Amino acid sequence: MTDEQLAKYRSSIDNFDAALVHLLAERFKVTQEVGRYKASAGLPAADPEREERQVARLRALAEEAGLDPVFSEKLLRFIVAEVIHHHHRIAETDAPTTDDPPTA
Amino acid sequence: MTDEQLAKYRSSIDNFDAALVHLLAERFKVTQEVGRYKASAGLPAADPEREERQVARLRALAEEAGLDPVFSEKLLRFIVAEVIHHHHRIAETDAPTTDDPPTA
Repeated sequence: MTDEQLAKYRSSIDNFDAALVHLLAERFKVTQEVGRYKASAGLPAADPEREERQVARLRALAEEAGLDPVFSEKLLRFIVAEVIHHHHRIAETDAPTTDDPPTA
Repeated sequence: MTDEQLAKYRSSIDNFDAALVHLLAERFKVTQEVGRYKASAGLPAADPEREERQVARLRALAEEAGLDPVFSEKLLRFIVAEVIHHHHRIAETDAPTTDDPPTA
């Protein structure tokens, strides 16, 4: 491989990364909606059962696609952690304010 | 929003996640090639300058797409760490074996 070939590969990686960013931006738009719904319905931000179903499904998809399923699981948990963090922020912003935190 | 609406959102999230997995699988195919090249050329697995350029570019793209640039940076570093881990594995497998690790 030449440095020119390396530059070509890097150009493909950059394209994939741009696609990833745009896909994730769209994914977060949807999870923001879910966050607002959960906040308004008083539902908890996290849903461990849903998360386990997502992990199992993505591990299977990853295996089929030739991606390390362990990596796909770590990645999903990383993204979900960010989503839950957003959900908490939405719940704090949207919820009727209780100025005093509950004691003990 | 109803539970039916929530189910619709989750179905979109699942589609985005399947797309993400397939995109990442393709991205790793390219980085595997890069890893093989680096191993054969004796180049280091990590390239901090390239990584900083990628981070800067993705932060700008993320901002434009409405994605948290801090999240996009964390995500890229997470993916790059996995790639570098792969590069090391490739280098260990492809390189001429030196049975004894260098002493001190």
